[in-house]
Amino acid sequence: MTNEFVDLKENMTVDEAFQEIKKIGIDKETIYTCYVLNMSRKLIGVVTAKDLLLADRDKLIKDIMDTNIISVNTLEDKEFVAKTFDKYDIIVLPVVDMENRLVGIITIDDAIDVIQDENTEDFTKMAAITPTDDNYFKTSVFSHAKHRIIWLLVLMLSSMITGGIITNYENAFAAIPILVSFIPMLMDTGGNCGSQSSTLIIRGLAMDEIKTKDLFRALWKEVRIALIVGIILAVINAIRIQIQYNNLKLGIVVGIALVATVILAKSLGCILPMLAKKLKLDPAIMAAPIITTIVDSCSVLIFFNVAVMILHI
Amino acid sequence: MTNEFVDLKENMTVDEAFQEIKKIGIDKETIYTCYVLNMSRKLIGVVTAKDLLLADRDKLIKDIMDTNIISVNTLEDKEFVAKTFDKYDIIVLPVVDMENRLVGIITIDDAIDVIQDENTEDFTKMAAITPTDDNYFKTSVFSHAKHRIIWLLVLMLSSMITGGIITNYENAFAAIPILVSFIPMLMDTGGNCGSQSSTLIIRGLAMDEIKTKDLFRALWKEVRIALIVGIILAVINAIRIQIQYNNLKLGIVVGIALVATVILAKSLGCILPMLAKKLKLDPAIMAAPIITTIVDSCSVLIFFNVAVMILHI
Repeated sequence: MTNEFVDLKENMTVDEAFQEIKKIGIDKETIYTCYVLNMSRKLIGVVTAKDLLLADRDKLIKDIMDTNIISVNTLEDKEFVAKTFDKYDIIVLPVVDMENRLVGIITIDDAIDVIQDENTEDFTKMAAITPTDDNYFKTSVFSHAKHRIIWLLVLMLSSMITGGIITNYENAFAAIPILVSFIPMLMDTGGNCGSQSSTLIIRGLAMDEIKTKDLFRALWKEVRIALIVGIILAVINAIRIQIQYNNLKLGIVVGIALVATVILAKSLGCILPMLAKKLKLDPAIMAAPIITTIVDSCSVLIFFNVAVMILHI
Repeated sequence: MTNEFVDLKENMTVDEAFQEIKKIGIDKETIYTCYVLNMSRKLIGVVTAKDLLLADRDKLIKDIMDTNIISVNTLEDKEFVAKTFDKYDIIVLPVVDMENRLVGIITIDDAIDVIQDENTEDFTKMAAITPTDDNYFKTSVFSHAKHRIIWLLVLMLSSMITGGIITNYENAFAAIPILVSFIPMLMDTGGNCGSQSSTLIIRGLAMDEIKTKDLFRALWKEVRIALIVGIILAVINAIRIQIQYNNLKLGIVVGIALVATVILAKSLGCILPMLAKKLKLDPAIMAAPIITTIVDSCSVLIFFNVAVMILHI
């Protein structure tokens, strides 16, 4: 924010305004939007250089000024400010205090920086890094490690739950060792499916294309997408298993686990970011890493249960 | 791009320029930057409304115009154009053809849209979705499925390699079934580490904070970060294993596999996006999903080999 703006009085003529701009404009950040203030410096109108240039010289400012002012309050957060620029397609935004006194202006190049910082923050959060928008090389190795270790630890400890679940099915994979070889495929596919959904939902929320009230509409969409995608993957997998192991039952077991995993991953990828938003948390934390960890446990659980049931282990 | 700009002649006075603006300016997208064209409509100078407002009325345009023009060519891609706005902090950019004739202008709100589209494209690519910046709800279920299935298939087939590797070590986990339970933790940690590094590198490349010539500098940074992070994770894991299974050797096996996985994941997360950029591909495709799939195979291979060696299976 800067206070390098041109302020005018409502009883000036356009010609007087030009003289004022010529006198004080050289040091100002922008002269293209001038602010009309009353005696107590309250913002009562906005006049653009375009209005001035297109008006007759003897007109009064109060007759050409726009009193329908788009402004932001000093207390507003910067994401809201950046969105205001985008919404109204304006290049400068006045900042007023609680008494509507003009305290400064924000120009659109500041808004671009905020938008870029916001995006960077989302990228890092979604990759399980605690938020930072520091320059990569300027950040020390220790600082990088600090920003990354917390989530890695949390996620590592959580993924041990999946390990714990696997040990419960020792008998199953002792009887049919090949079962173990499907775990990476199930885990990766679940992770990728969850990542796809959560990324689109998080981005949609950030761009205001998706609202939290759309939860069920989005979920219904994701479930249908999951069904299509899941069945295609399951069929291709079953064909592969049939060719490689000549074992239809095994193909069915893996297929059921795959479809269930895809539906679960896509549903969580949709629900968790929207729930986070509803709880006033940043949706970006509910991205691939967390969803992968949850889906992993569930997919392994589903897989071994289906295997025990169908293969009668 | 629009051709709603004000063009002036170099022999006009400032006052004549004001009259011209007043006459034709009402329909123009911007009047704040006016373009000075010669007889063959070649761009020879730029005059801002600020220059005009601060100058004396009888000055000639050619004496106040800026001949040091920042312009883009009609053939330039939109990312380059958006970056030009950011670099020079300007609000409008003239577009010229090969003969330097002015064909139109681009305003900064177009640039913001391009920046947001670019970011959306990176987000989706990094989540293994073929690029799209369509609105989430306006895109049909089938179209969503189509954009997601290709990468899921490729990654699913690739993750079968990891499954194949596991089957080679059937004897190992037949002897010590608990080994299997560490696979999800190794895979997830590798995936998360790779995701952290590739995200920061991809974002750094997009923001021009990291150049492809910095490859070794970035790699050296990532390796050191990986060492710190890997050792912390390995020690905590070993303590957990010691408490739960009272088995120091097992803790060492998992610890070695973990450190190796973290170093590999972070190195690939650094090298692959930079290599893609060098090959004129979009670095964003070398994100978490691909790196996870590669790291999975390697980490399982490392883990079982270390296990066989140290535990004498």
